[in-house]
Amino acid sequence: MLTVFDITGTIAFAISGAFVGIHKKMDIFGVLMLAVTTACGGGLIRDLIIGVNPPAMFVEPVFVCIAAATGLSVFLIMYRHKRMPASFAGVYDTLLFWFDTLGLAAFTVDGVMIGINAGYAGNAFLLTFLGFVTGVGGGAFRDVLADQMPDIFKKHIYAVASISGALLAVLLHRTLFPWRLSMIAGFVLVIVIRCLARHYAWNLPKVT
Amino acid sequence: MLTVFDITGTIAFAISGAFVGIHKKMDIFGVLMLAVTTACGGGLIRDLIIGVNPPAMFVEPVFVCIAAATGLSVFLIMYRHKRMPASFAGVYDTLLFWFDTLGLAAFTVDGVMIGINAGYAGNAFLLTFLGFVTGVGGGAFRDVLADQMPDIFKKHIYAVASISGALLAVLLHRTLFPWRLSMIAGFVLVIVIRCLARHYAWNLPKVT
Amino acid sequence: MLTVFDITGTIAFAISGAFVGIHKKMDIFGVLMLAVTTACGGGLIRDLIIGVNPPAMFVEPVFVCIAAATGLSVFLIMYRHKRMPASFAGVYDTLLFWFDTLGLAAFTVDGVMIGINAGYAGNAFLLTFLGFVTGVGGGAFRDVLADQMPDIFKKHIYAVASISGALLAVLLHRTLFPWRLSMIAGFVLVIVIRCLARHYAWNLPKVT
Repeated sequence: MLTVFDITGTIAFAISGAFVGIHKKMDIFGVLMLAVTTACGGGLIRDLIIGVNPPAMFVEPVFVCIAAATGLSVFLIMYRHKRMPASFAGVYDTLLFWFDTLGLAAFTVDGVMIGINAGYAGNAFLLTFLGFVTGVGGGAFRDVLADQMPDIFKKHIYAVASISGALLAVLLHRTLFPWRLSMIAGFVLVIVIRCLARHYAWNLPKVT
Repeated sequence: MLTVFDITGTIAFAISGAFVGIHKKMDIFGVLMLAVTTACGGGLIRDLIIGVNPPAMFVEPVFVCIAAATGLSVFLIMYRHKRMPASFAGVYDTLLFWFDTLGLAAFTVDGVMIGINAGYAGNAFLLTFLGFVTGVGGGAFRDVLADQMPDIFKKHIYAVASISGALLAVLLHRTLFPWRLSMIAGFVLVIVIRCLARHYAWNLPKVT
Repeated sequence: MLTVFDITGTIAFAISGAFVGIHKKMDIFGVLMLAVTTACGGGLIRDLIIGVNPPAMFVEPVFVCIAAATGLSVFLIMYRHKRMPASFAGVYDTLLFWFDTLGLAAFTVDGVMIGINAGYAGNAFLLTFLGFVTGVGGGAFRDVLADQMPDIFKKHIYAVASISGALLAVLLHRTLFPWRLSMIAGFVLVIVIRCLARHYAWNLPKVT
């Protein structure tokens, strides 16, 4: 089950990385590299923190290949049309929102699971952070490399959704819920918060 | 003793992170995250370099909580007043200078101590670097995430003070000084250099 | 043999870091730090990925010293002349191209070798990545710290040359070529691609 969502998340994040690269006028190689960074960067940071050497992306490079293929496809489509095909532009925001949200939910739960399997089931703080960093790390990496302020500092509900989902999964797992159910609950919570935030245009307060 | 200064340093760096976040128009969550990153980022880099997995901030999250509480307080005060209360503005620079300096001195000596305890007492270069990166790493992290050039490249005496203090602590420790005294000497040197640099407006040369 | 090229690479990357620092109006300490970061950053990232704790640059600080001495020399020359001496300006581009190219080739092959010695001879993907990240990581680090978009996203042939050379070295090593010959082949390929790209002004496609 997680694999399906992992692939969805990888593709979604690779698409967002490729778009930022094209927007920043990078060439085809830069676009590919940013797609891979966005899709695999969160897992890389997570693995460095719990000391998985070498990180999973190098041992099982299938997700790197999926991300690179996705980035290449986006580049070729944009290169051919010079801009989004008009028929696609109408649904573009909605599509990206859903890919992004599915990816965030899958990667968040994934990070929690990997932390539990690595033997940190007793440290709720670390597990929640691993879910969070797996979910949002790739996008932060992308923004630092593309020389812009990370979105997560502004698209607030994004990060809050990830933390809430990770925390719920961790707490349910603690209370002896079956792990599969705990993960699904966390996954669903991320998606629900994102949808509610979008529908009601929720915003966190700012000092203006 | 170190714990008192660690708490001071954590609060000071969290305050500086929160101010940068507010200045960059981040929302409440971004401000909290930047406060935590600034306060805990230096220790995180240090732990990754000497291979402490998972890093201390995840095993003993008390400093993360202190940093988050500090960031939240700063945000709430600023949110309420929309700007610094006038009575506070007069002492703001002085207060920040002192918090910042105490934090830098405490974290620098802290990094050296942790390196010695981890078994690297024989490598003076590594120990000095650990003190330096623990002291200035959080601020550099903050600036990279906030999309601005790290202050340490410009607030030069800041980095030089940290390196000098770390080096002094390491060298005294080597010459069989009691470790407590070596650390205090390093701590005091950081503060003295910062005060002298401030009082005499010292500047390192630049190519203009 | 590798040591000669390593020293060349360290000096070349330190020069490029120092120039970026001066261009960004950093003071002498910032210039030194950026020189060291550019020269040693790629190896640092490589060591973190394969779990060498503490990273080589702290155990054998000779390359840090070479990079710092190079950065200091560049700063002093520029400080004295306020700009490039005229007689030097004519050959500046050519000199930097050659230093940069030799450094890239040496560090790329170096990363592959260190990966093989660390026991990852069976993972061609990881080895290629280690060569790539050792070659281009320092420059990316420099650009992130100097608050500009990493060059490798735009100086495309640069990154492609590194990946091609690393891949060739890995593949030849796999087919039971003597390792010395495999490394020289990879080294030469990096240089040939860079020279061809420069001579024919090759460019990778972009969406404009």
